[in-house]
Amino acid sequence: MSRIKLPNTSEPASVLVVGSVAYDDIITPFASGERILGGSASFAALAASYFAPARLVGVVGNDFDPRDLDRFRKRGIDLAGLQTDNSGPTFHWKGRYHENFNRRDTLEIHLNVFERFRPALPAVYQKSEYALLGNIHPSLQRHVRRELPAEVFAAADTIDLWIKTTREELLALLREIDLFIINDSEAEILTGHTNLIRAGHALRELGPRLIIIKKGEHGAYLFHPEGLFALPAYPVTDLRDPTGAGDAFAGALLGALAVLTGAGQPAKPTFAQLKHAMLFATAVASLTVEAFSTDRLESTGPVEIQKRVALLRTLVALD
Amino acid sequence: MSRIKLPNTSEPASVLVVGSVAYDDIITPFASGERILGGSASFAALAASYFAPARLVGVVGNDFDPRDLDRFRKRGIDLAGLQTDNSGPTFHWKGRYHENFNRRDTLEIHLNVFERFRPALPAVYQKSEYALLGNIHPSLQRHVRRELPAEVFAAADTIDLWIKTTREELLALLREIDLFIINDSEAEILTGHTNLIRAGHALRELGPRLIIIKKGEHGAYLFHPEGLFALPAYPVTDLRDPTGAGDAFAGALLGALAVLTGAGQPAKPTFAQLKHAMLFATAVASLTVEAFSTDRLESTGPVEIQKRVALLRTLVALD
Repeated sequence: MSRIKLPNTSEPASVLVVGSVAYDDIITPFASGERILGGSASFAALAASYFAPARLVGVVGNDFDPRDLDRFRKRGIDLAGLQTDNSGPTFHWKGRYHENFNRRDTLEIHLNVFERFRPALPAVYQKSEYALLGNIHPSLQRHVRRELPAEVFAAADTIDLWIKTTREELLALLREIDLFIINDSEAEILTGHTNLIRAGHALRELGPRLIIIKKGEHGAYLFHPEGLFALPAYPVTDLRDPTGAGDAFAGALLGALAVLTGAGQPAKPTFAQLKHAMLFATAVASLTVEAFSTDRLESTGPVEIQKRVALLRTLVALD
Repeated sequence: MSRIKLPNTSEPASVLVVGSVAYDDIITPFASGERILGGSASFAALAASYFAPARLVGVVGNDFDPRDLDRFRKRGIDLAGLQTDNSGPTFHWKGRYHENFNRRDTLEIHLNVFERFRPALPAVYQKSEYALLGNIHPSLQRHVRRELPAEVFAAADTIDLWIKTTREELLALLREIDLFIINDSEAEILTGHTNLIRAGHALRELGPRLIIIKKGEHGAYLFHPEGLFALPAYPVTDLRDPTGAGDAFAGALLGALAVLTGAGQPAKPTFAQLKHAMLFATAVASLTVEAFSTDRLESTGPVEIQKRVALLRTLVALD
């Protein structure tokens, strides 16, 4: 099970990922896919697995293909926390991307087994240094956060749906996490600020010490107590399907942090380590969008990821 | 006349700027301004003047206020190439910015004296190492290019109007310049590529060895034979009026290059010098948008510009 190795690091810490495991129908301007593996936890856990031991918390339904479980197992992902609920089908999302991929519509959303889902954490999962509370109902994210020791580094992602429908739950979650990862349009909805810099500062006032605002093809911004950091996106020329890019970004970010701070050490990444992890997150996100579903994310490897990180370094190098 | 000084540089080279000098009416979501000094050459020459001797080529009409000439003179700008045509009023543009400033409509455009304008270059202008062919009819840009020696480093900017109405003239111009500076939506219209990376490569195939695509609040991309360079925008929180930001960017860019390559030297900036100049261009553009017209651009100084460059460096610093 190949992983990224960095100089001067020992064993990586572990990353727990909670979120959705889904079957998606996706329509893009160029192609379509039906019943393809998706969900925030799928993308995030696969991305994290290139860096650190990843543990998945989620639920699948009675229609879930066991071969799809193998896709996680092949990357060494611990599935002890993945429940199977035979009372109904797997979470299903159908969406359509518009020209330029700069907007998408949700055509159908069926929570299915997620309506009854109550995350249960295997005992060993408590020992994870990092937890990614992937996009899912904020009450489930909070439930998992509270099951974990306080010293676990908790990062959360969300989408506009939860901002609009479960705002109070989301605000409560923000007071309990270390890092909030959100995209630019969601940051605007949540804070009311159209200016991204103002939005980032306003988000920090809601609780999290660290904020990352993702801007898709325009890169990402880190708001840190020590200052701001801006990183452009990887220069992708073959965009196929943006689904899961944000989840892969978050999974790779926590995976890279797990490598940088190491097993058995406090999960207290420095500003420099967070920047470094963003390079890896950006590289992995760029791979994700070059194919449907998790295909490209599964077919890549440490060498390709490192190559993209190297290119990103030259892309921003001043001297 | 205070200018930016850089270590290890002698006398700066000179920058010729051709473009419009205008009176604008501007409506933004927050405020409006009437008959305010504008035009591509005004912004670009003022921006260049913080770095290098700037020479202006343009025309004003019978309504031009002599006090506005003083605004250029105060910054040491050579106005020998600025004609006064008493047969009509100065170029006039009226525009309205939409919420978020991400779109603007031209409400009125009166070329006035620009309809009859034929740029005439004073003899000393021939000795400029750098020429900025600012936004203006491409046939006028070409005329000026052809009046100058071949070894002059020529950069050009344009707007969607010329791409749509004078495409062939613009394509001819592109074969005669070194650097083309264009914004992302214009690059898309000109090349047909919605992907910015593809658009940049396609633009290089149209002639210019160097391409800069500006993305407003998302920064700018340099396409160079040696590779790509991405720079985020300065984190502006008080956007007042984006008019002229692109012109100021271009003027400061050539001004900074003039400092970096120096007087009497071939105007052949390296990849590293171009990156360095983009820092200055980004800093100066960020000042421009914080007030109406050229106000902020005139009230700033080398210390403030250097401070923004320093902040930009920390914004993108990886280690």
